[in-house]
Amino acid sequence: MPNIFAKIVSGEIPADVVYKDDQVTAFRDVQPAAPVHILIVPNKTIGGVEDLERSDETLAGHMLLVAQGLARQEGVADDGYRLIINSGAHGGQEIEHLHLHLLGGRPLGPMILRR
Amino acid sequence: MPNIFAKIVSGEIPADVVYKDDQVTAFRDVQPAAPVHILIVPNKTIGGVEDLERSDETLAGHMLLVAQGLARQEGVADDGYRLIINSGAHGGQEIEHLHLHLLGGRPLGPMILRR
Repeated sequence: MPNIFAKIVSGEIPADVVYKDDQVTAFRDVQPAAPVHILIVPNKTIGGVEDLERSDETLAGHMLLVAQGLARQEGVADDGYRLIINSGAHGGQEIEHLHLHLLGGRPLGPMILRR
Repeated sequence: MPNIFAKIVSGEIPADVVYKDDQVTAFRDVQPAAPVHILIVPNKTIGGVEDLERSDETLAGHMLLVAQGLARQEGVADDGYRLIINSGAHGGQEIEHLHLHLLGGRPLGPMILRR
C-alpha cells in the first residue's frame, strides 16, 4: 500500500506541487502551521529518517538544498525559516514517508516547548 | 573571528563532544531543551543553511545520517526524535555556524505554535 505522500509523488493524489525533480517532490502542507509550510519528500519511498541508508546521503542533502531554494522562491530566505524532520512517536511523525518541513513567513518562536 | 562552534570544532573551547569525524562534530547543547539535545555542525565554517552550496550536498546529508546514528546511540531512536535547522531571525538561529539540532527523550509536542 503506497502511503499518501507516495501517491502525491506518483500523481495519484493531487497536491499543490511547488517543485519536482528526479529525486524529490515538494508540495504545500494541506494544514499549514505557518504562512509558508512546504513538505519536501524523496520520490522513492523511505519510511523516515530512521530508514535512511549510507547510500542515501546525497539524496538527504539534496532535500536540504531543495528546501534552501524553495525558501528563496517563497521569499522567506531573508527573514528566516525553520527546517524540521520528525521521527517516530516522540517526534510526532504522522506519515511514514520521510518528509522535511519548510516553515516560514512569520517569527516561529521556540523550537519546542521547554518544560 | 571564529564563532563559538568553530572554536568547539577546533578544541579551543571545551564541549561535551559525543561524535567527531573528518566532516562533522556533534556535542551536547549547554542549554538543553529536551533530555537529549545534541548539535551536529560541519567542521568547516558554513554560516547557515543559506550558505550551503551545491557541492555541500553530501556534507549536508552526512549531518542527517550522523544525527540518525546519534539518536540510536542515545537510545531515543525507537521512541522518536526531531531534527531542526533554524535559519535567520524568523527561524531563531542564534549562532552563525550551520547546526542541526537533535532533540529527543520525551514527547516533543507540536512543531511550532500555531496561531
